[in-house]
Amino acid sequence: MPLSGKHLLGIADLPVADIRLILNTAKSFREISERPIKKVPTLRGRTVINLFYEASTRTRSSFELAAKRLSADGLNFSVSTSSVSKGETLIDTGMNLLSMSPDIIVIRHASAGAPHMLAAHLKGCSIVNAGDGMHEHPTQALLDALTMEDKKRELAGLKVAIIGDITHSRVARSNALLLKKMGADVWICGPPTLIPVDFASYGVNVTYDMKEAVEEADVVMMLRVQLERMKEVFFPSVKEYFSLYGLDRKKLAWAKKDAIVMHPGPINRGVEIDPDVADGTDSVILEQVTNGVAVRMAVLYLILGASEEGSK
Amino acid sequence: MPLSGKHLLGIADLPVADIRLILNTAKSFREISERPIKKVPTLRGRTVINLFYEASTRTRSSFELAAKRLSADGLNFSVSTSSVSKGETLIDTGMNLLSMSPDIIVIRHASAGAPHMLAAHLKGCSIVNAGDGMHEHPTQALLDALTMEDKKRELAGLKVAIIGDITHSRVARSNALLLKKMGADVWICGPPTLIPVDFASYGVNVTYDMKEAVEEADVVMMLRVQLERMKEVFFPSVKEYFSLYGLDRKKLAWAKKDAIVMHPGPINRGVEIDPDVADGTDSVILEQVTNGVAVRMAVLYLILGASEEGSK
Amino acid sequence: MPLSGKHLLGIADLPVADIRLILNTAKSFREISERPIKKVPTLRGRTVINLFYEASTRTRSSFELAAKRLSADGLNFSVSTSSVSKGETLIDTGMNLLSMSPDIIVIRHASAGAPHMLAAHLKGCSIVNAGDGMHEHPTQALLDALTMEDKKRELAGLKVAIIGDITHSRVARSNALLLKKMGADVWICGPPTLIPVDFASYGVNVTYDMKEAVEEADVVMMLRVQLERMKEVFFPSVKEYFSLYGLDRKKLAWAKKDAIVMHPGPINRGVEIDPDVADGTDSVILEQVTNGVAVRMAVLYLILGASEEGSK
Repeated sequence: MPLSGKHLLGIADLPVADIRLILNTAKSFREISERPIKKVPTLRGRTVINLFYEASTRTRSSFELAAKRLSADGLNFSVSTSSVSKGETLIDTGMNLLSMSPDIIVIRHASAGAPHMLAAHLKGCSIVNAGDGMHEHPTQALLDALTMEDKKRELAGLKVAIIGDITHSRVARSNALLLKKMGADVWICGPPTLIPVDFASYGVNVTYDMKEAVEEADVVMMLRVQLERMKEVFFPSVKEYFSLYGLDRKKLAWAKKDAIVMHPGPINRGVEIDPDVADGTDSVILEQVTNGVAVRMAVLYLILGASEEGSK
Repeated sequence: MPLSGKHLLGIADLPVADIRLILNTAKSFREISERPIKKVPTLRGRTVINLFYEASTRTRSSFELAAKRLSADGLNFSVSTSSVSKGETLIDTGMNLLSMSPDIIVIRHASAGAPHMLAAHLKGCSIVNAGDGMHEHPTQALLDALTMEDKKRELAGLKVAIIGDITHSRVARSNALLLKKMGADVWICGPPTLIPVDFASYGVNVTYDMKEAVEEADVVMMLRVQLERMKEVFFPSVKEYFSLYGLDRKKLAWAKKDAIVMHPGPINRGVEIDPDVADGTDSVILEQVTNGVAVRMAVLYLILGASEEGSK
Repeated sequence: MPLSGKHLLGIADLPVADIRLILNTAKSFREISERPIKKVPTLRGRTVINLFYEASTRTRSSFELAAKRLSADGLNFSVSTSSVSKGETLIDTGMNLLSMSPDIIVIRHASAGAPHMLAAHLKGCSIVNAGDGMHEHPTQALLDALTMEDKKRELAGLKVAIIGDITHSRVARSNALLLKKMGADVWICGPPTLIPVDFASYGVNVTYDMKEAVEEADVVMMLRVQLERMKEVFFPSVKEYFSLYGLDRKKLAWAKKDAIVMHPGPINRGVEIDPDVADGTDSVILEQVTNGVAVRMAVLYLILGASEEGSK
């Protein structure tokens, strides 16, 4: 069964059936990376272009390995911000790449909506959003969901606390959207200056009190603090931030006994998370990375399966 | 039938029979990129090194995909200009790469003649010129020729107008050389400050009047304006440049009704070409990109075929 | 027969039997790079990550080609120094990469001991040291040994002179360690400011007089002068350095008639070596590069063979 669409642009428009299909496929693909020969011929001769307008060695590497393990041919096309200013438009770059006959373009871009714009203009090729501005990061939410399911059986009914700089986080947005679709009880928490007003419309609970968010939670998901943003005075100091919203053993004790700790990485030790907790037995941060490769394999595989069936 | 030589250094020394062979081979290879499985085992186990001294994501990607679709192993070896200054000489770098047993080195370099120097010193490996200074860019001329043949049947007798900054354009030079060899009627046009004296010796027509160049043309090929060069006062302003040498619907109307519009990319919308024309039905700019992959596949394939036959 | 350990961290801890095994395996692999189809399926589906914290196109390319010729999947993960400062720790980056299920991580790092730290923390993956600070560069010493054996039959009893900036050279350190293990007579020579005190403990001879080092030598190994370090006043001028420690025909005449000249590259012509000598018939500098690919193929192959046998 293919996906209902040929692109993966965000969680907002992704039907629950597609989410289920991706998670189940990822589970069956995970085993490939555990073999001595970590490779299946499924996508041999397919071309996957990683079009990255932001440096992101981690996400790009995850997509690159996913493509290689399915035997697809990958091409990294990195555009530095500096060359964009004097260079061609996103659509022109996309049309040029399309003329080289890729099957999938994976795009990371600093502007929200860039993948959607590509998808609207580039007929005959699938687009996967690998993070667009402060908007969405769908494969991150999918790998997070896979990790939660592994540990907690099902997403429905879970209390998930997402803590930190919500405003600038595409991870928070995609996770909130996905978790609500799957029936979880989502709590958003951070300094008032870092929570956008529109989040309430997603049906999530918003609080500035970390205790209220974490209390009896099944999952505590910490977001990365962008230290560069400290200067913009969203919060006064690292020390004060950590005392209010950093996760240490004391605050984690508010959650359920078997709660898991998540983080999209890379972590800032001592800023948003205590090393004790990051390296503790409740932490599933590294399993998230492993699931990232499996989810991206599933997405590439299902998208190419879907387009083969001729769906639009 | 192999090529007559083991290198592709420029159009100047390329016999007409070789040009024909590359174009015909490219036509037959084009279909590979249209398959679901875009890959043939032809060059399995061959090593192609992309040695790029200038940033050029587009040309490098085209060569990289060409190599992958023929199942060759590619290696990108980028040398930033800064490290060249304190680093080893071109020949030393080349000899080092040669010691890793590549079959082909594809080189892009800011200095005219760099590929020829490599070819003279590196015995046992083929050199392909991917652009050397303001000198030649042979695969660009070949992909342009392929595009013209597709649309106009044969090159002989075509009126081709090449418009813009001729002085700094290896694209113009390689195209002029190839088109003259194939019997086309070539018109070179641009501001007097941007046309070099030696072009007359190629047997092309030179004019500063765009109407004369474009009138009854079968092909209008626009060159990219290097905005950095505007500062060097080769022409007074973008607006004035566009009014004299930019291609819009009005100027295009001077050409034949079925004339095609070409551009090596990336285009500067509104500088040398009007968006209307770039995106219009006469534009074959994106087909040039598609043909670029096919031509490069043909070149890699024929060169390795040729060297196998033991030709020097 | 596998290696005795699952990592290659340095020559210091490498048993003589392992050195022999790597050299012999490399000899048998060298032939692969001479075939038209330079590829064997030995490591198909294995993942080799090149984790480079220092720019090193040459060493990275050598490892990359070695992996490709064994059909392994390679991933380049480059971390610029700037991003390290605000980024995650080495161990966190390593643990993240480990979560993507690589078989081998090849690491180049500016700090001595970085590979050992990774090896201590990353269970389930092999680590290969591609150069750590001023400490070791084991594959360089192995490829140098292979080159000497080719030319001189056996290492035992050879007089090897290593000349230049010893203090900052991981190449000198790894070579001295390996050559002593194999029974060679090692002479270290350079300006007093550039020879560290601890070298005497390796059982090598130390002299500041180039004639004493080179006299009757079988091998003269020149080290690269880091021109950046000239400013740190370790020696007064290029001209004076060359007159005392640069290798020209006159100084080479002190060595045995059939002495070979080596250099890890890239060479500074006229600084530490005269072009005459670098390009002369005694120079085996380019054979070192060729042997580099073969040695790295052997290391990747033997390490994965070793871990397959279940050794720790």
